[in-house]
Amino acid sequence: MANKKELRIGMIGTGLMARTHSNGYNRIRDFFPELEYRPVLKTVCSRTEEKVKAFAEQWGYDSYETDWRKVIDRDDIDAVDICTPNDMHAEIAIAAAEAGKMVLCEKPLARSVAEAQPMVDAIEKAGVPNTVFYNYRRIPAVTLIKQIIDSGKLGKIFHYRANFLQDWTINPELPQGGEALWRLDVDAAGSGVTGDLLAHCIDGAMWLNGAIKDVSAVTETFVKERVHQGTGQKQKVGIDDACIFHCHFENGSLGLFEATRYARGHKALYTLEINGEHASLRWDLHNMNYVEMFDHADEPVTRGWKKVLITDSDQPYMDRWWIPGTSIGYEHSFVHQVADFLKSLEDGVPCEPTFKNAMMTQKVCEAVINSANSKSWQDTGL
Amino acid sequence: MANKKELRIGMIGTGLMARTHSNGYNRIRDFFPELEYRPVLKTVCSRTEEKVKAFAEQWGYDSYETDWRKVIDRDDIDAVDICTPNDMHAEIAIAAAEAGKMVLCEKPLARSVAEAQPMVDAIEKAGVPNTVFYNYRRIPAVTLIKQIIDSGKLGKIFHYRANFLQDWTINPELPQGGEALWRLDVDAAGSGVTGDLLAHCIDGAMWLNGAIKDVSAVTETFVKERVHQGTGQKQKVGIDDACIFHCHFENGSLGLFEATRYARGHKALYTLEINGEHASLRWDLHNMNYVEMFDHADEPVTRGWKKVLITDSDQPYMDRWWIPGTSIGYEHSFVHQVADFLKSLEDGVPCEPTFKNAMMTQKVCEAVINSANSKSWQDTGL
Amino acid sequence: MANKKELRIGMIGTGLMARTHSNGYNRIRDFFPELEYRPVLKTVCSRTEEKVKAFAEQWGYDSYETDWRKVIDRDDIDAVDICTPNDMHAEIAIAAAEAGKMVLCEKPLARSVAEAQPMVDAIEKAGVPNTVFYNYRRIPAVTLIKQIIDSGKLGKIFHYRANFLQDWTINPELPQGGEALWRLDVDAAGSGVTGDLLAHCIDGAMWLNGAIKDVSAVTETFVKERVHQGTGQKQKVGIDDACIFHCHFENGSLGLFEATRYARGHKALYTLEINGEHASLRWDLHNMNYVEMFDHADEPVTRGWKKVLITDSDQPYMDRWWIPGTSIGYEHSFVHQVADFLKSLEDGVPCEPTFKNAMMTQKVCEAVINSANSKSWQDTGL
Amino acid sequence: MANKKELRIGMIGTGLMARTHSNGYNRIRDFFPELEYRPVLKTVCSRTEEKVKAFAEQWGYDSYETDWRKVIDRDDIDAVDICTPNDMHAEIAIAAAEAGKMVLCEKPLARSVAEAQPMVDAIEKAGVPNTVFYNYRRIPAVTLIKQIIDSGKLGKIFHYRANFLQDWTINPELPQGGEALWRLDVDAAGSGVTGDLLAHCIDGAMWLNGAIKDVSAVTETFVKERVHQGTGQKQKVGIDDACIFHCHFENGSLGLFEATRYARGHKALYTLEINGEHASLRWDLHNMNYVEMFDHADEPVTRGWKKVLITDSDQPYMDRWWIPGTSIGYEHSFVHQVADFLKSLEDGVPCEPTFKNAMMTQKVCEAVINSANSKSWQDTGL
Repeated sequence: MANKKELRIGMIGTGLMARTHSNGYNRIRDFFPELEYRPVLKTVCSRTEEKVKAFAEQWGYDSYETDWRKVIDRDDIDAVDICTPNDMHAEIAIAAAEAGKMVLCEKPLARSVAEAQPMVDAIEKAGVPNTVFYNYRRIPAVTLIKQIIDSGKLGKIFHYRANFLQDWTINPELPQGGEALWRLDVDAAGSGVTGDLLAHCIDGAMWLNGAIKDVSAVTETFVKERVHQGTGQKQKVGIDDACIFHCHFENGSLGLFEATRYARGHKALYTLEINGEHASLRWDLHNMNYVEMFDHADEPVTRGWKKVLITDSDQPYMDRWWIPGTSIGYEHSFVHQVADFLKSLEDGVPCEPTFKNAMMTQKVCEAVINSANSKSWQDTGL
Repeated sequence: MANKKELRIGMIGTGLMARTHSNGYNRIRDFFPELEYRPVLKTVCSRTEEKVKAFAEQWGYDSYETDWRKVIDRDDIDAVDICTPNDMHAEIAIAAAEAGKMVLCEKPLARSVAEAQPMVDAIEKAGVPNTVFYNYRRIPAVTLIKQIIDSGKLGKIFHYRANFLQDWTINPELPQGGEALWRLDVDAAGSGVTGDLLAHCIDGAMWLNGAIKDVSAVTETFVKERVHQGTGQKQKVGIDDACIFHCHFENGSLGLFEATRYARGHKALYTLEINGEHASLRWDLHNMNYVEMFDHADEPVTRGWKKVLITDSDQPYMDRWWIPGTSIGYEHSFVHQVADFLKSLEDGVPCEPTFKNAMMTQKVCEAVINSANSKSWQDTGL
Repeated sequence: MANKKELRIGMIGTGLMARTHSNGYNRIRDFFPELEYRPVLKTVCSRTEEKVKAFAEQWGYDSYETDWRKVIDRDDIDAVDICTPNDMHAEIAIAAAEAGKMVLCEKPLARSVAEAQPMVDAIEKAGVPNTVFYNYRRIPAVTLIKQIIDSGKLGKIFHYRANFLQDWTINPELPQGGEALWRLDVDAAGSGVTGDLLAHCIDGAMWLNGAIKDVSAVTETFVKERVHQGTGQKQKVGIDDACIFHCHFENGSLGLFEATRYARGHKALYTLEINGEHASLRWDLHNMNYVEMFDHADEPVTRGWKKVLITDSDQPYMDRWWIPGTSIGYEHSFVHQVADFLKSLEDGVPCEPTFKNAMMTQKVCEAVINSANSKSWQDTGL
Repeated sequence: MANKKELRIGMIGTGLMARTHSNGYNRIRDFFPELEYRPVLKTVCSRTEEKVKAFAEQWGYDSYETDWRKVIDRDDIDAVDICTPNDMHAEIAIAAAEAGKMVLCEKPLARSVAEAQPMVDAIEKAGVPNTVFYNYRRIPAVTLIKQIIDSGKLGKIFHYRANFLQDWTINPELPQGGEALWRLDVDAAGSGVTGDLLAHCIDGAMWLNGAIKDVSAVTETFVKERVHQGTGQKQKVGIDDACIFHCHFENGSLGLFEATRYARGHKALYTLEINGEHASLRWDLHNMNYVEMFDHADEPVTRGWKKVLITDSDQPYMDRWWIPGTSIGYEHSFVHQVADFLKSLEDGVPCEPTFKNAMMTQKVCEAVINSANSKSWQDTGL
């Protein structure tokens, strides 16, 4: 370790994403030993001292803070990782960039385009390395899909479709707001499934299939009121419980997207499919180690959908892990993103999606919400 | 057979649907022996004598005609079965109804609401038994889904989605028009995938989940010109190659529909899924003997999607066929519809979808096309 | 029909197999119109007059008999089809052959090698066309597997495995013997799952992978006593409820077989898999329209198991049926075997498996039972 | 960490299993923070200094050794973890036990029963905590299967079957012996797929379904000679490339097992299935986060095989990881075993399988090899 450069991390937040990111940093030594940079968990920050102290001890942070501004002020922090609810992203990111810190941010960038733009501006102005955790790009199967599409194998693209189906908010007694449930509170989250789930689908779609030009959307809020954990009162639910949209991609293909938290039986069923002239590809998160592929170039009589198990060392990232046939899991996508960020510090090539890239997804999300509200097609401006 | 009543059929058309319907009639004796009515294949009609003669001999028709009006004029015909391209449905159906014949018609009813309305009027005025072959209702798995939904097991419905994916028109050298390819000719077909494929999805959706109130659609024609088999000239393609729409059902659930003939790798992938408060159901045509079901009432730790194989005699229609574990096929859906039509003659309960029922699907299809053309939400009028 | 040659059928039996065979004959006109021979259902025979009369009327037999010897004596019968319990096969087949009738026989040939040998001898001596209904060879997916193996694509074969799993006899209150349950009565059936289910697996295995040289088996009878429907008394169960064996094929590959009626959840799960140096193939009866294939010659990074949907007209038998994506069912395998038998009358090439071919399976079944009884390896004599 | 007890580990070996075990130790702090004991990676040992030094640095070992005896002699080592080729297990384990160290050992225990017995004796005599890494017991889906079986839900058991299919040694140019390929060298491994793969299947089977009483096996060595990496010469291959056996369990059920490295298309396809009177369960390693279950108590018309996704916090071990719908991987099974071992130090309940438990699997493996060699049934002595 003597010859490693330290990347001293200041983590803001102690929720689920703080766990996945912390795990990402902690796995680098064992699985990416050749990287020049080695993350050092310097400090973690959350307002509740008891909670942040326990988190720091569990994950091996050297210290903890209860005010995020202190993290940014510290000289021994190289990079700030933002894992707070969405409503805090902008303020922290801008302050961090202005302080010359690298910034890693959980998605979505912000609650709105208006809120996100100053973040991108600040990051660009500061010129600091940055990345946004649209982690699903780094699931090996999804990365392989990107490589296959980029090889041109699919030919002209006709269709792209993705959905993200969950069922955890069907119970109307579930409250909104507060820890673990801020995603149901429109003030904290900005939107419901659009920013939470569709943002992943949209990021993936544009990475794989190019820009989305215009959208026509519908949203629904099935449960109109929920008790707010902050106030203890029943309050109007401001988020979208479900969102569907279709769209045109710049390459002429049609897109179809859906997300919901009311699809009984589906836990985190992110699926994507792309249909090209010569071949099609499919993937879903519940079977995340497989790519499904139909190749029209195969011999006619035995053409079919191939289930490709992504566990071989010649498949993306899989030289780091175990042996053919043995799976990796959800958490590995974050490890890969951390590794790619560290690599980007070595070679100077940005670790996508950067804030600037992520702004594109933000714009599509906003066009989606606007379309649903106005019941009209909306250009994304991309 | 001595005690059976004859139902003397006059078939118009000799294409794929004439084959599936003829097979439907021919299977009744062996598999539905208890029915009072027994179909008798009296005559079949097509303009090309050589073709219709061969068809008559193959399928066991007593005679053939080359002018459909002669079929309607014949006293020895009880029921006219319309298996022509869509542009002939209205004229034949109206003439048949006016002549007091029962009318069985392949879907969709017609090319447009305007064309379909007089058909419904004529049928209703004549008061003749009638049915439209939305055959997928009679796949046992789909019928079972109807029974489960009607039992109330799903609770409040949040989502309904269906698609119908094919890939047979990707090749731009494929001509349009003429035999076998009239579905690509807008004059003969009225629309593309909307009337051909989505009509099935819509019929199924409204049967299972109630009326669709409004729609927002997009269509695309990927191949803009194709040689027309009639003229030998390249002509503009007038049909929709692909169509996507979302909608509101009357029960408050969101709908999502897609059909295309450009989804490489999918042959006739009609899939449907319904998500309710307490349970969800799925089905697809490529695995037509299965229902998939998620039941939230199951014990929490072992809840999951159940693959229910529909081959047992306590499942719809399956007491007619073989033994548990042995499948039936696509053709059986038509046999079931014929059997149900014959049964309806016994008990006087209409064999749904009737012309009147099928008009609802026609209206949704038209709203879909109008929505895509106007880039706006359209009410269906239902 | 004027120019068709009649093949006048005398059916012995009115059970499940009499239904599947009768349906086979009845479908020829509509789906194999080009064949020179046309089956004519002349007579059907069963001891119970009421039952056989109803069967004759339902399936369109011209007449019925209650003594099978009368069928053989009739001059207007060309071919005798034996669908009785196993204990009647030998006597009927020998008498039919000696009377110069063609013989079609449901599998297995007989209850034992000793019983089967005179049947083969009589058939061979008479020189009459004959076939045994190992119908699964004619499921299009299975036929395609045969073609792929014969093309040499798999290279050296290492493994063949097949099983046939059912669950319908778990209930110990189920009686044995008599109609529908003669398969549980060792006197009528000869053996349990070995002759009923494994016989199919063995026939398929040797057709696809060559002769089985020796076997090591185990059998089990889980329910030791059942009421016999004939006597009304509890009697010892003489059949094997389950049977497992491994074996060597002549080509050096290892075989593994299992059948049971005690595999809760499986209805008629006949699965087969063959692993070769270059490729592997899989199939199962619950998803009978699919072949699964792994081809090591595929590009390494996207190698995988392909699910090939067998509904295209370039796949075996499928030019007779519908359109890509639309399935056929269990019953079609019998239609195909009847069609192939009729074709064999035209071209003089025997319709396999003949009695002689089927004797090989009989020998393996007997070696299996002997091995289980003696707890030792047994040569099959092949 | 102040209040944690250290468990100072001495790792012997630097191969694949040394990696999976080291990862197991390194994950405890982050995911099992409540455990009293905390592993400390004190030293790792391998004969090649360069390799072991790099391994130590990558995985965070404080030091390294090149002679395993030194590890055992060190006072600062509490537990020895044996990840060497099989031929070293016995000597190291016995020495470690005699030195009063806890012993964790990769499976199988040894190359033979004769070699394993003194290991068990030494461990028992020393009374040291010990465990053998039959890691698949700790895949949450498999653990859940154990819980369901133990609940009695399946009723009387009829069948247990398992196989472990790979394809990585088909190429005859692959050498045997030496690093990474010692599994092909009978001197180092003791056997081929029997000890490597079937041992897992047997351990799982007896854990889930009780003792195996007798076995009838066949083995095959498809490639008879391979170059040995040690000598550079072609040498006879002494291992079994494939092994199949059937057996009786003590509870009266039949067992069926198969393992091979010649099943083209399968990477590490460990599958298991158990059929009981009332329910059946299935699992496979390629889809390791699912349990499949058929419950005959379900409503008849919608009975089916349920695919249960094991990612919820009420399922075994899953409260440690992420959120519903997000998978874990192969490596987690080792983390769980380490955690369970640490827990066993707290509560004094042995962490199964202990050396004593693992001896049972050793005995079955030996009976299997003896049966194949003698072509006869063999009692296991259990």
